[in-house]
Amino acid sequence: MLSGMHPHDGPLTRLRRSHEQSVLELLRKYGPLSRAEMGTRSGLSRTTLYDIVAGLVTSGAVVVGTPYVEARKRGRPVEKLSLNPAAGEAVGIDFARRAVHVAAVNLAHEVVGSAGEGHAADLSWPERVDIAVRLLDSLTTGAPGPESGSDGSGRAQAVHLGALRAIGVGVVGPTTDPGSESAHAQGIDGLPDLLRKRFGVPVLLDNNTRLAALAEAVWGAAADSSDVLYLRLSHGVGGGLVVGGALHRGRHGLSGEFGHITVDPAGERCECGKTGCLETLASLDAVLRRYRAAGGGADSPAQFLDAATAADPPALEVLARVGSEVGGVLAAICHAVGPGVIVVGGELAQAGDALLEPVEQALRQHLMPLARHHVDVRRATLGEAGSALGGIALVLHETPLLTHYPQPVSEENA
Amino acid sequence: MLSGMHPHDGPLTRLRRSHEQSVLELLRKYGPLSRAEMGTRSGLSRTTLYDIVAGLVTSGAVVVGTPYVEARKRGRPVEKLSLNPAAGEAVGIDFARRAVHVAAVNLAHEVVGSAGEGHAADLSWPERVDIAVRLLDSLTTGAPGPESGSDGSGRAQAVHLGALRAIGVGVVGPTTDPGSESAHAQGIDGLPDLLRKRFGVPVLLDNNTRLAALAEAVWGAAADSSDVLYLRLSHGVGGGLVVGGALHRGRHGLSGEFGHITVDPAGERCECGKTGCLETLASLDAVLRRYRAAGGGADSPAQFLDAATAADPPALEVLARVGSEVGGVLAAICHAVGPGVIVVGGELAQAGDALLEPVEQALRQHLMPLARHHVDVRRATLGEAGSALGGIALVLHETPLLTHYPQPVSEENA
Repeated sequence: MLSGMHPHDGPLTRLRRSHEQSVLELLRKYGPLSRAEMGTRSGLSRTTLYDIVAGLVTSGAVVVGTPYVEARKRGRPVEKLSLNPAAGEAVGIDFARRAVHVAAVNLAHEVVGSAGEGHAADLSWPERVDIAVRLLDSLTTGAPGPESGSDGSGRAQAVHLGALRAIGVGVVGPTTDPGSESAHAQGIDGLPDLLRKRFGVPVLLDNNTRLAALAEAVWGAAADSSDVLYLRLSHGVGGGLVVGGALHRGRHGLSGEFGHITVDPAGERCECGKTGCLETLASLDAVLRRYRAAGGGADSPAQFLDAATAADPPALEVLARVGSEVGGVLAAICHAVGPGVIVVGGELAQAGDALLEPVEQALRQHLMPLARHHVDVRRATLGEAGSALGGIALVLHETPLLTHYPQPVSEENA
Repeated sequence: MLSGMHPHDGPLTRLRRSHEQSVLELLRKYGPLSRAEMGTRSGLSRTTLYDIVAGLVTSGAVVVGTPYVEARKRGRPVEKLSLNPAAGEAVGIDFARRAVHVAAVNLAHEVVGSAGEGHAADLSWPERVDIAVRLLDSLTTGAPGPESGSDGSGRAQAVHLGALRAIGVGVVGPTTDPGSESAHAQGIDGLPDLLRKRFGVPVLLDNNTRLAALAEAVWGAAADSSDVLYLRLSHGVGGGLVVGGALHRGRHGLSGEFGHITVDPAGERCECGKTGCLETLASLDAVLRRYRAAGGGADSPAQFLDAATAADPPALEVLARVGSEVGGVLAAICHAVGPGVIVVGGELAQAGDALLEPVEQALRQHLMPLARHHVDVRRATLGEAGSALGGIALVLHETPLLTHYPQPVSEENA
């Protein structure tokens, strides 16, 4: 029942959406309001207001109810308008190499929830999108509408997305034109169209590690800072910069490639084609290899992390070396960029202080004294959902003009 | 004859200034216009337009003339309004360690000129400001108004600054709140007030190396790019980042400190307090020291640069090593930030290709292959005037709301 929506609407449609945004913003700010209170606060005429509210109620964004205290009074009880807590305003989807993660916020900008599911590396895009739809469905069980899958028309029905504004999508690797509707990454041909057809709203795409950086700066470990350096230590090593509260992307989208900063010019060959990159020393595989070379016994990153938690000496020694190399690279970036907070995420960050202490020590050692006390190092707090949450942040923070609401359902298709 | 001006004016004054800006913008865009043409294009009422134009003529921003072709016609010739090419709109002043540089742009946003003068390192701020006023005077000899110095009231009279909007000032070292009127740097107490009293307009302050970066991105070697990394190799080593056309400053103004990135942890002690900084290897003094150690004979940076120009083998060898170290550091920053153009400035850049070729070679070697062809390396083109020009760019680009014109002179003080 979602009507078709188009990113390029005329001025009247834009004006209507702007009014809708004002009404939603007032409900976000003040909680439930009567139509009269809404009229005073919004400055909209009675006719316009009733029309806008009717549309929002039809789309499921706003619900009308009578508070208990009002219902007990004499006379006709006053109806109050409130945001529908089951109405998703923005959805984030992270298409990682072997997993899909989703998250959604409602119109009150509360995170409704997040969910994830692993899959084979060679799964097709339509199948990955199916996983995303199923996961989103699982987040909104209490929502009105049919319970599952698609209605055959190619549009999502299961989740209550009547008030959906846009979808923020994270993908692996560098993207051109990141953060926009025309964004593109290698090997994802067809994905944006697939999602647009499925959900009927604009699709904004960016690198998923960069989205995790944005999420940590908005909801995570650095929610108090607007200048954030996020480093992810996982199967790959990368990150992102948030500058003045906005994602920094760089020319051609090539920024946050911290994993390819040279640490040891005489070191090992990296997947990127050069030698001695931080990634060859600090990725999960590299750490596991170094652990075995130091006499440790572990077959998987999880086993290594267990050993580190158990304070196994070779594991701690490897983490001390890795931390020192990471800290040196972070110091170089700090001198260039000057972040207020450094957030370390990815699986390796689960090693906690065994990693973060040597990171911080090397960082301070390589920072000019003047800068030493102007930056905090923290562990990421959002975990695997980070990039999906970043997709939401992308929608909410970077697309103020994409206020995209469906038209009221006409009698024809109601 | 400059009337007092205040940064916090009421809405009517702001409205007036907005009208003044519109009129100036039209003259910038279309060249000389008659009052009738101006009326059509500006959409201002006849009364408002005549009033605004009268004010601009009185302040010296706009001149009225009759073009030759019009004067030859029968009947009353049509007067045309044009920008006064002698009216300075923005002034930049760079207070370097031992020199003052100034530059000015007129209302057509043409650089009127630049000038500089050396002085002793311990010269007082009032004396440095006197030098700045004298240098500005030298730029505007043909301008109306008294020819020299100050009128005793503490306001500049010599230069025709009737239409001056603000002054952008570069100072040495990190600044807090950079680019704003409340900016501050260590050891400059009293300077902003001194300038404000002298010129009667807002004073915007920033680090002078960062301003040079902005200038190269606006008028210099990287005028075609909005993502620029500027490195200055001089007595110190520093730089600045321009991101999306705007100066990037970082938390606490601590960015662009490229000279304090560690290159050799076992290296020499740096003035900043740590060891092995790029500055200990690539500053003019460091290069001179390394040149002597390599058997070269030079007593000054100028002699070293002469030797390099004459292709003296030890000089070239030292530049090759310095270039390689610089290129490695630049590659690290590129991975983090992703600039489109790298501009190398400062005295050492005068060595030309003997320096820039090894820089570029090391840069490409340490950049991931994917990023290798997305960045250009160029020599700075603005020379010593760069920071003063950056002060102007600061005024024009970062203070759209500080459109600060004097009130028309009243009969009282005319």
